[in-house]
Formats: sequence, C-alpha cells, structure tokens
Amino acid sequence: MSNISGIAASSGIAIAKAYKLAAPDLSFDKKKVEDVESEVKRLSQALETSKEELEKIKSNARKTLGDEHAEIFSAHLLVLSDPELINPIEDKIKTDNVNAEFALNETATMFIDMFKAMENEYMRERAADIQDVTKRVMAHLLNVTFPDPALIDEEVIIIAEDLTPSDTAQLNKQFVKGFTTNIGGRTSHSAIMARSLEIPAVVGTKTITSDAKEGDVVIIDGIDGVVILNPSDEEIATYKQKQADFEKQKQIWAQLKDEPTVSSDGEHVELVANIGTPDDVAGIINNGGEGVGLYRTEFLYMGKSELPTEDEQFEAYSSVLEQMGDKPVVVRTLDIGGDKELSYLDLPKEMNPFLGFRAIRLCLERDDIFRTQLRALLRASTYGNLKIMFPMIATLNEFRQAKVLLEEEKAKLKNEGVTVSEDIEVGIMVEIPSTAVIARQFAKEVDFFSIGTNDLIQYTMAADRMNEHVSYLYQPYHPAILNLVNNVIEAAHAEGKWAGMCGEMAGDSIAIPILLGLGLDEFSMSATSILPARTQIKDLSKKELATFKDELLSMGTADEVEAFVREKTNQ
Amino acid sequence: MSNISGIAASSGIAIAKAYKLAAPDLSFDKKKVEDVESEVKRLSQALETSKEELEKIKSNARKTLGDEHAEIFSAHLLVLSDPELINPIEDKIKTDNVNAEFALNETATMFIDMFKAMENEYMRERAADIQDVTKRVMAHLLNVTFPDPALIDEEVIIIAEDLTPSDTAQLNKQFVKGFTTNIGGRTSHSAIMARSLEIPAVVGTKTITSDAKEGDVVIIDGIDGVVILNPSDEEIATYKQKQADFEKQKQIWAQLKDEPTVSSDGEHVELVANIGTPDDVAGIINNGGEGVGLYRTEFLYMGKSELPTEDEQFEAYSSVLEQMGDKPVVVRTLDIGGDKELSYLDLPKEMNPFLGFRAIRLCLERDDIFRTQLRALLRASTYGNLKIMFPMIATLNEFRQAKVLLEEEKAKLKNEGVTVSEDIEVGIMVEIPSTAVIARQFAKEVDFFSIGTNDLIQYTMAADRMNEHVSYLYQPYHPAILNLVNNVIEAAHAEGKWAGMCGEMAGDSIAIPILLGLGLDEFSMSATSILPARTQIKDLSKKELATFKDELLSMGTADEVEAFVREKTNQ
Repeated sequence: MSNISGIAASSGIAIAKAYKLAAPDLSFDKKKVEDVESEVKRLSQALETSKEELEKIKSNARKTLGDEHAEIFSAHLLVLSDPELINPIEDKIKTDNVNAEFALNETATMFIDMFKAMENEYMRERAADIQDVTKRVMAHLLNVTFPDPALIDEEVIIIAEDLTPSDTAQLNKQFVKGFTTNIGGRTSHSAIMARSLEIPAVVGTKTITSDAKEGDVVIIDGIDGVVILNPSDEEIATYKQKQADFEKQKQIWAQLKDEPTVSSDGEHVELVANIGTPDDVAGIINNGGEGVGLYRTEFLYMGKSELPTEDEQFEAYSSVLEQMGDKPVVVRTLDIGGDKELSYLDLPKEMNPFLGFRAIRLCLERDDIFRTQLRALLRASTYGNLKIMFPMIATLNEFRQAKVLLEEEKAKLKNEGVTVSEDIEVGIMVEIPSTAVIARQFAKEVDFFSIGTNDLIQYTMAADRMNEHVSYLYQPYHPAILNLVNNVIEAAHAEGKWAGMCGEMAGDSIAIPILLGLGLDEFSMSATSILPARTQIKDLSKKELATFKDELLSMGTADEVEAFVREKTNQ
Repeated sequence: MSNISGIAASSGIAIAKAYKLAAPDLSFDKKKVEDVESEVKRLSQALETSKEELEKIKSNARKTLGDEHAEIFSAHLLVLSDPELINPIEDKIKTDNVNAEFALNETATMFIDMFKAMENEYMRERAADIQDVTKRVMAHLLNVTFPDPALIDEEVIIIAEDLTPSDTAQLNKQFVKGFTTNIGGRTSHSAIMARSLEIPAVVGTKTITSDAKEGDVVIIDGIDGVVILNPSDEEIATYKQKQADFEKQKQIWAQLKDEPTVSSDGEHVELVANIGTPDDVAGIINNGGEGVGLYRTEFLYMGKSELPTEDEQFEAYSSVLEQMGDKPVVVRTLDIGGDKELSYLDLPKEMNPFLGFRAIRLCLERDDIFRTQLRALLRASTYGNLKIMFPMIATLNEFRQAKVLLEEEKAKLKNEGVTVSEDIEVGIMVEIPSTAVIARQFAKEVDFFSIGTNDLIQYTMAADRMNEHVSYLYQPYHPAILNLVNNVIEAAHAEGKWAGMCGEMAGDSIAIPILLGLGLDEFSMSATSILPARTQIKDLSKKELATFKDELLSMGTADEVEAFVREKTNQ
C-alpha cells in the first residue's frame, strides 16, 4: 500500500477499483489486402460501433450534465457521417489494396494537417474533432479497448493525467465514485466539476498515473487530499468509518437546509451558489442555497459551432429564474476569451491571454453578441429576481458603456411591447485590482459588487494560477487581498450597496471568518459547500471577528493570517 | 504629401529620405550547372562578402551600442565558418550538379528544420541564426540588395514594420536620422532604444510601410507623433523651424545640466536615469542626470550562449559605479523570464509569461545564478554608491529570502578577505499590485521603493501592454494607479524611507506634476527626458500641487485626471 498526497478538490471518501483513463496503443502495420470488400466492411463496422458509442455517450452527458455539455458529441457524430472523410478511406482501401487501419490513418492525417494549417481557429478545432474520432474508430479496427468514462458500468475510481471537459461530461455518478489526477488545483476545471457532481476528488498528485495499476483498490480522501493504493483491511475499516462520519456530518448539515444563515450573534448573511447551466439549480435547492450568486453563461456559448440565439438564451435564463422563484439570481454576462476560447469567433491568438481581449472588453467591441445576450436577459427578467453582472470591469467607462447598451436594449424591447422588470440590479465583478482600489468611485454608480477572487488573486499577485511554477503565489490570505476585499466592502456599505464574493475563497473555512468579520454580505460557492459554511457561521460571532480587522489588515504575510485565524477559530 | 499619425516615441524632428527596411525577394530557380568548380567559387565569394559585412556590422554595433549588443553578430559569424554547414553545400553542388542557391537552400533548410524540432530553446535559437545568415548569403548569390542598417552611408529615415534588437544594434546615428514603424508603443524595445540613441522616432503608425516608397522625402515629428511623406516646400520650412526651435529648447534645457532639480517653491527631487549597459552612462552625464535610478542588468545575460561570469559582471557593475562617482546607482537584480528569454537557461514555456516564472521568482529557485550576481555586486560596492533592488516582489517572504542570500554572500566574501561596502541600501521594485497595496508592511523592512509603472499598470489593469486589443487599458493616469502610487509614497515616508519611480510614467509631462504633488522623491527616466523634466519642475510649486491630492485620488477616470492636470498646469 502507499499514500499519495494531493489537493483536496471535492470532499468525501470513496473506495473502489482503479480505472485508468489513458491513451491506448493504436499502432498498426501497413498490410496488403486482397479481399477489399471485406476490408471495407470491417471499416463500416468500426464506424457503426463508434457511432453507437458516441450516441450513448451523448445521451449520458445530456442526462448527467445537461444539453450544453452534450453538444460536443454531436460534432463528433457529424465527422463520422461525413462522406468527404469516409469515401476517400474506402477508395484508398480499394485502389491501393491496403488495410483499413492504414487507409484511415493516411486519410485522416491529411485532413487533420489541412485543417490544422488553417488560420481560422474554428477550422483548427475541426482538426481536433477528427483526431478524437479517428482514434475511436482505430481502436475498434484494432480491437483495442478505448477508455470511455461513459461506458463504465461498475463502481470505479478514475485515475488520469487530467480530465478534460469532454471527459467530465461523460462521468456517470452512479459508477464513478471519485477521481484523482496528476495535475490541477482547487480552481481547475476538473475540481469545479467534481464539486458540482458531488463526487470526491484529489487532484495535483503529480504521480498517480504511474503509481496506480488498473484494478488496484483505491481510497480517495477528498477531505484531506490523500489517495491510498491497495489499502490494508485496517485502512479500509478506518476510511469506511471516516466515510460514515462524513455521511453523518452531511446529515447534520442537511438539518440546516431550510434555515437562514445566521451567525452566533444573530447576523444574517446570504449563502448562494455558482452555477453553469439550468441543470445545476437542483443542486442549489438540495443544498439549501439562498440564491444564485454567479450564473456563468459561457456554457451556453461553448462546445457548439455557432453563437446561441436570443431565444436559446432566453430559455436558459428564464428557466433558472423560474426555478429559483423570488430568490436572487446574479447572471454574469459573457466572460469568454482568455483561457476560454470560442471556436466560431476566431479570437486573436494572444501572448498573455489572461491579460487579454476577453469578457467585457470583447463584449463592448462585439456589441452585436452582447446586445443579443442583454435582450435575452431583459426578456427573462420578469420570470424571477434577476441581477445582471458585468465581468472584467477595469474602468468606470467600461461600466458606463455596458450600462448604456443595456438601457438601449431595454428601451427597444419596451417599444416592441415586451414587459421588462424595472427592479433589475446592475453590478460588476471586482476581479481586476484597479476596480478594487477605486471601489469607492464605482460604488456611486453600481448596484452591487461581487468579488471574483480567482482572478483578483492572480492579477494582484501577478501570478498565473494555472502555472505550477508560480502557483505558490496564489495566496487568498495574502494581506493585500484582504485589504482589497475590505476596501470593496467598505465602499459598498458607504453607498448603501451590497458586496458579495463569488470566487473559491467564499467557501473556504479559513476565509469565511475573515470575510464575516469584514462585513461581506453574500457568499457564493459550490452548492455542496453551502451547508458546511452555514454550519460554520452558526458558531461564529460576527461582532467578535470584526474586532480582529485592523490586526489582520496590517499583517505581513498570508501565513501569519492563516495561523491567526486558525488559533481564533480553533481550526 | 500625406500625414500619418503614430505614437511619439522619441522627441525631435528629422527630415531625410526614406530607407525601407524590408525583406528582399530571395526567390530563385533550380538550375543544372556543368562547371561546378566556378559554382563553388561563387558560393565562397558570397560567404566571404557576408563575413566582411557582418564584421563591419559587429564593429559598428560595438561602437554605437557597446560590447553586449555586438555579441549577436559573433554568433552569426560562427555559422558562416562552420564546416558542418558549409561542406555539405559544396558537396551538393558537386554531386548533384545544381546551382549554389539551390544547394544553399536545401542544406540550410535541413539544418533549420532539425534545430527547430529540438526541445532545447538554445538549439532553436541556432535555427534563427542560420536563417538570418542564409538570407544574407542568398542575397549575395542573387545580387539582391540585403537591407542592412549598418551599411547605410547617407542620411536616411528608416521605415519598417518593426525594428528588432538586432536591427537597432546596427543603427549609426550619423546617418540614421530617425525611424518610424508600423507597430510598437512608447514602452516597446524600439522606442526605448530610440530615446537611448537620441534620435526622433514615431512608432505604431500601422501603415507606414505601405504608405511610404523608397526614397520618399520623410519628416518625422517625434514630438507630436506625426510622419509627413513628400512634404511641400512650405511644410519643410515649417518643420525646419520646429527643428530649430527644438534645438534651441534643448540648449535652454542644457543650461540646467549642472543644476539640481528644484521646484518653484524650493523643493529638491532627484532626476536619475534608466540604463542597460555601462556605455549608457555617458548619456546620463551629458544630460545632467543625478544618478542611475534603474540599471537593468539583463543585457549582461542576453544575446550570449552562457551565463555571464562573476568577473564579467563585476567589471560591468564597477564600471558604472566608478563612472557615476558618489552619485547613487540603483542596480536591479536579474529580471529575466516573461517576454525576456535566455536561450541557455531552457525556461518553461508558459501560457501567460507576464504572469509567470520570472525575475525574483526564478532567482530564488535558481539561487546559483542569483548568488553569482549578488557576489559581483557586493565586490563592486566599494567603487561607488551602490543600491540593490529586487524585481517582481509580491510577498514579504520573497524579500526576506532574497535578503538572506545577500547577507550570506556578504559574510562569505568578508571571510575571503574581500572588502564590501557597509552602506548598501537594499530595496524593491513595486510593480506587483499586492506589494503596492501593503507597502506599509514592506516599508518597515526595505530601505527604499522604486515603483515600476510599466508592469504595475499592466497588472493593475489586467491588460497586456504589448497586446493592441487591450492597449487602451494601459492608463498611467487611472485613479487606481495614482492611489497605489500614493500609498507607496506615504508608506515610505511614514518609515523615513524614500520612494522613486522607474517606469515610463516618471518622465511624462502630465504625470510629473501629479507625482511631485504626491511627494515622489526620485524620478528615473530615459536620460534625454531629464533636462525637459528639470525645466518643467522648475516652474511647478510642490506645495500647490499637493493641495490637489485628495481631489485627484477620488476622481473616476484617467480622462478626468488628465484634463484636470492640463488645466492646472497649462499644458
């Protein structure tokens, strides 16, 4: 047995067999074939099997993760039915008397190289689709198992270098009990997805793919960030107990499901959730969330071949608003660009995408895209309690321009006879240091702030949070971050506005006492973090925590801050 | 005639003929040759001529820009004498009976592809060297003029897409009266180089290479950022007058050369210069600089094939210190990484290099490199008034670690019997928002601050200053920047320390009154900006400017700030 430590990405304990998600060996020899007809038939069968698999994966993805996530597989299915790709493979078999593997590889490689060489990002993404699909067909020709998370039908723990969005879209909670990866951190895609699926995960282990063998018994401890391979009976017993304790703990948390969030001295704060699609609303309701603090609308735009229409967007927004009733729903307008590319938009390649043309910067220039989203939001506004939030605001002028566009679309809609809510709050993400610094100036014009700590921390520290060489600088407790957060909260309150937070920090047990003491009004987190946070806050005195403010803000390092909070709150 | 506007990168007026620095047509046909001996001779001649040219360029570069800049051409000369490259070309001519152009191209392409495919960054850079040199030899074989800034022997204005470090290293001020480019901004390499050479330049015109024809008469107005093509006699007269006025202005400025910098109400501030090599010291002395505010030591590490030795560094540092006498010399330790790569270090490729593994982050991990630099600095410390400055400090721990290394090397040197100055101030660049925010905590431990606005602005605004899509967000007058700068100055003064600034902003005529009012102690800029700045400050009342502080800090936008300053200072 051996213990491997990593980053606790999603809490809970899982025990199951290892399922290694690794690239299969797809090497083959070129062969001369005489019976070309039966070789073409072999190809057709491999294509058919691949289609059936993809249909199954797509429908699983739709069920577990919603329509948006399933779209990527429609693109793959299209490739498999494209005569421009398939006919040349058959021709090659017939004319050159070669085996199907060779013909497939030759033809696909030609198309892939051709698409890759194109300037257009959309075409280059087609190359990736063809590559994915070719691998699947090749695996069937070679009778090699192609690891498919969607086809898993027994309880397993997935072991992988990393999980891509396409991988996570295929996970079936019924069988996938947890996963562990070599790379990633608490804010990486796979970690966020694990929390949204409520399965335990440990990421960033560095070596798990070489440490674990297929079929090994694996324990994932997503509470303390540990993976145990081939545990002893004793260890299994210990972790089964820990698992039972965690389930019990969850039941205790569940008792607070329908309670408001109140500190020990009777102060109410709002615990809300971050979501990506209308399907995520169920998770909020199950976990007693008091609203949506961040609706990331990017998923509507991703994994498809064209922009979503106004009606498609209206459906999604009104569905979330309707499901949430009178509870607040903060919708963030499109935050695309940076690490999130849209194949069909052909965005410029940038040297530093995190410091580039994204979010509101892109929306103000491509106001056709932005206006469509604003119209969809305004039309949906009568279905619930909508608040609109602009991302990546760095200057007052950007906020003013965005607001002008919103008002223009509102006026147009009213002219068209459409009813629009008159009570829509309009606020901004505070994720760029400039905006945090002059929050006082912003507070006069916005209705609310939501502090996006994932980006705010990386910009304030000038450290890419995805870059392992500088990830030690991603320090949520750095006194500079606390000072900026405090500045934003004070600015909001001075103008009678509210301040929330929608980064990972809002659900962190060290940060929560600090933020409560600084007077944060709204905490937006993964749905599964809401009940533990509510439980924690019940035992915290906001008044007492507020007395630590000056001391915390004048500390020198993140370590000092953490040690202080741990001591004061017995953690 | 037509007027093209761009960014004023280096002031002054120049009138001369256009010299277009563009890639020549190097296309050729494959030919069968019978007389292979004379074909080989033709190749040898082209190689010889190329060598002679490169020797000339190298010696020019050494004279105008110093040894460091000349090194790149030594690498090129090595390629031309490499039998592993040259012999196969000759063999190809002889064996295949082909012309020298074809043989050169085939052989060079093979080597270039081979080197390019290598993982190692150093080898990939060799590919670029071979490519450069091959072009030059090919041009001679084809009898095509290869535009060589170093070979210019009449007065011209250079027109180019952009100027590379290798291009600017070849500029001879005697003939190159100015330049103008399609791309670039005030902080791009070519702009900084133009100011260091004191020749007028207008960059970022977008279209100048297509607007101007070879031999056109061109006026460069580096004061207002305008380029005039084929001016009328009237325009020439106007600009000759403007040129004369500028020369007169320069003479007026020159009168303040040996004066201290004093505001109209008698307050002294220090005007110092940014330099890259010991050769730049002459420019400071000619322009009445009161010291070196930023000695960028990167040039010692760039354009070579291995790390500079401790002795090489000692030579450079002690030379600068000695030349400056008792005037302060602030040396910034190695700031490499990000956009500045070192071929021989094989740094990781990063998705966002500006938010990556660079400067102090790299030095603390590669402390072998860092200790060598610290030792060289400590040994040089007795030659003048040395101050050591660490770049990219984001946390107090980084500063403390760097200081420990410095103290360790100091103790070692003293043990070895080397005399080290006991009065070395040790400070930090403030270029990361976190450090500007908690400057109060830092001020207790550092001896001084120097605010690096080029980076501080791009991180605070989360906008890559090299990315044209977001360059509108590079706003030095943004109230957030002013608040951070003010915070740093107040923090320094509260602890009896001094605060300087070494970004482009320090020499800007709108920023100077603001910074004087905020109490900045030291302004470090291009040497040529010192006398204009001194002249401007002579007429400014620090006391009066200080009264605007609260109003400026609570403004909403950069535009408001600029308009306010223009009004108050009649600009």
